[in-house]
Parts: sequence; C-alpha cells; structure tokens
Amino acid sequence: MTDQPAFVLVRPQMGENIGAAARAMWNFGLDRMRMVEPRDGWPNPRAVALASGAGRLLDQAGIFADTAAAVADCDYVYATTARTRGLTKPVVTPEQAMQEARGMIAQGRRVAVLFGPERAGLENEDIVRANAIITVPVNPEFFSLNLAQCVLLTAYEWRRGTPGIIPERIEMAGAEPASALEVEKLAEHYETRLDEAGFFFPETKAPGMKRTLRNLWSRMPLTRADVQVFHGLLRQLTRGRGDGR
Amino acid sequence: MTDQPAFVLVRPQMGENIGAAARAMWNFGLDRMRMVEPRDGWPNPRAVALASGAGRLLDQAGIFADTAAAVADCDYVYATTARTRGLTKPVVTPEQAMQEARGMIAQGRRVAVLFGPERAGLENEDIVRANAIITVPVNPEFFSLNLAQCVLLTAYEWRRGTPGIIPERIEMAGAEPASALEVEKLAEHYETRLDEAGFFFPETKAPGMKRTLRNLWSRMPLTRADVQVFHGLLRQLTRGRGDGR
Repeated sequence: MTDQPAFVLVRPQMGENIGAAARAMWNFGLDRMRMVEPRDGWPNPRAVALASGAGRLLDQAGIFADTAAAVADCDYVYATTARTRGLTKPVVTPEQAMQEARGMIAQGRRVAVLFGPERAGLENEDIVRANAIITVPVNPEFFSLNLAQCVLLTAYEWRRGTPGIIPERIEMAGAEPASALEVEKLAEHYETRLDEAGFFFPETKAPGMKRTLRNLWSRMPLTRADVQVFHGLLRQLTRGRGDGR
Repeated sequence: MTDQPAFVLVRPQMGENIGAAARAMWNFGLDRMRMVEPRDGWPNPRAVALASGAGRLLDQAGIFADTAAAVADCDYVYATTARTRGLTKPVVTPEQAMQEARGMIAQGRRVAVLFGPERAGLENEDIVRANAIITVPVNPEFFSLNLAQCVLLTAYEWRRGTPGIIPERIEMAGAEPASALEVEKLAEHYETRLDEAGFFFPETKAPGMKRTLRNLWSRMPLTRADVQVFHGLLRQLTRGRGDGR
C-alpha cells in the first residue's frame, strides 16, 4: 500500500499513547504505522488494550531500530515538531504537508511523517533526516498537544483534503425537503383558516400581513413531514370551526 | 468577548476531560467555555490539575443548570454528534461550521457549540435546541474520538480558517535565503576550481556538464550560510592546488 503516508512513532514511551495514536490514525482511514525503538519493547499489551478497534494497525506495524531504517524506503519525510530548533528546513502546517503528500503519493512517491516521543519530541538527530518540518499552527501563547493529538490533527488533514471524502453541508439529514407546491398549499391552508378566524384585520393591512406570512413559510427549511405536521395542527386548532361554518 | 464561539460542555463526567478540553481550546486561542451540570460538581480539582496552563478558562467558565440556559444568549447553536439520530437538522463538518461561525460572528451574532458527555454524547433533548449538527468526517468503519479530541478538531478548524493566522509554507525557517548573485558566485567558484582539476573532460562535453552544474546550484534551496559552507569546503578541498598552480 503506497496510497497513504506512513506515520512513524519515534521512541514512543507509554503503550497507552501508542494505542491512542493507532485509534487517531484509523479514525481518518490511515493504517500504515511504524515505530522506532518503542521504550517498553514490542509487542506491548497496554498499547493493544488502548487501541481497541484499531489493533490491526499495531499487528501490522513495522518496528525499526533507528529512524534512518524506518524511513529508508521513503522518498519524502516530514518531522513534526513545535520548534524548528535552529535547523534550516522548510516549515509547513499539517494542512500544507498533507496536501503536498497527496500530490507526491499520486505520483507514486512514498511519504512518511515522524512523531517524537511524548516528553521531549523529536531530537535534531531525527529531524535532520526529514525533508520538511510540520508545525501545528497553535496559539503562540500556548502549546499543549500530546502525541495522539498531533497524530490526530495530521491524519484529519490527510482525510479532510482528500477529494470526494468530505460531504457538502447537508441541509436536511434523513428527510425529504418539501416541494414548492407543498409549501404553497400549506401557505394557502393557513391563509384560508386565518382569514376565516378574522386574523387579517384591519383589511387595509391584510395584503401586507399575507405577504409576510408567505415569506415566512418559504423561508423555512421545511421537510415534507414538517408540512404534514403544520397541516395537522392547523386542522386540530380549527376543528369545529371554518369548514363547518 | 463575542469574537469567538462559546464551547459548551454538556454534562461532562471526568474532571480530567474537562481540563483536557480547556487545553484543547486554548491551543487554538479559544477561551470561552461553558458547562452544563458537570457530573462531579464545580469547581473540580481534577479539572484544574489537568488544565495546566489553560486554568483561566475554567476560572472564567459559565456553569448552567441546563442546556437551554447555557445557550440562551446565543443566536446560533451547533451540536456535535456522531449520529444524526433521526432528527432533521442541517449537518456540517467542523470546517464548514467554523467557517459559517466566523461569518456570523463577524456580523455580531453569538455562536455556541455543544459537546456531549464522554460516554453517550448529546441527547436528543440537547440536539433539538441546536440549529445545526457538526459531525467529524471520520472513517465510516471507525469512530473513536473522545471529548477533548472533538473539542480539539473544532477549535483547530476555528483557528485554521481565520485569515492571516496560518502562515504560508516557510521555505527557510530561521535563515536568510542566498541571493541569486551569491549563488552565481558560488557556481563560478566551483566551475573555476573544477576546471583547474580537469573535471570538464572531454572538452566536447564541457558545456553540457557546466550547464548541469549551474542548474543544480540554482535548483538547491540555498541559504547564505549554506553558500559559505560550500565555498569553505571547496577552498579546503583545493588547498595547495588551483590558486597556487
């Protein structure tokens, strides 16, 4: 599989965080995980316990003795770090990085993203092996992203930018919108009954009041079911009146 | 402050998660937090301990007895939920929601985002009070976002879309790029020394070889410091040769 970037956890410490990173990746459809020298050895039962549902990523994860080996087959490597630490490298956001990565991967190139250990982050030794640095554009006054959150935001950006994945705004989830004719008939029903009830008074103001009501109905994002509800409550409210008069 | 959306934690359970949510918000410059019926009462020492650095958000958080009260002063309310649960509502991604929110807030409208309790998420009782639903576009096979992660992604989208906040790709973090003249002089230096060393052989191929080298130098993203390094190593390599001949 070279249709997605590999995420490389470099010297991860807590098994919990490895499991959480696996879940973060799989939330956004990424399943190519690699690890460099996990502190507590491998396999790690705590990681498996915390990966619930994303355990397959751990089973298939490649384990490497050093960062160079972990990215040896990759054509382009990103290093995630909060500080550039005096190294001269291109610096990109997760959004820009994943956009670039999509372009490279579409051309058959292999891309990896390095994530550092929980406490200290990546060392310069690791970062010099990368082609570019990813820095999350946080509040300059406050940086407090943990390993799984860094993985999450990067994986999110991979998926967010993938064409055809993200839906447009859905106006009426799980419901059919009412047709203009249905809305028209609803407006007429109300106008008739309100007229019978003496609502449009004084007569000089009636045309304006009717226009306001028409506009109100057409401005509402009504479903077919909504229209039936409004018909029903009007019938109920006017029972014994109107039709019978 | 009405220059940002309020994030409303509805019936949050663990103090740890409240603290983590505060940190997630403040990472992206959001500090208007509200809470509805925190399970373990308020204030909550566990929340304060976990909010390290973002404790101010908790100190200033509004505490409300129910969801209606928490959003009473808001003009537009989003509810975050993984499932639409049969309710007819517009459904948007965090990206779309925060884009809409920026537009509304710029017009002076007040926007809130509801986040449900850790286990069960928001109840329909809460969701019916919202104008629209936010659903994170996760892998359809796998949803595993915790409260702080939902808050994180939404806050991230607020900041990501704010004009002028996110930098362009920085090609040379912390370094001045070399000028074209500096690169030209470097290329000349190498060409001269290589010529002296008999590198451009046979002579018929010399023009092509020189062109290739020129192209190589100009294609490299060189800083001023890089140029000095390259001059220096060439001088060192040719010490006692070239100039002296």
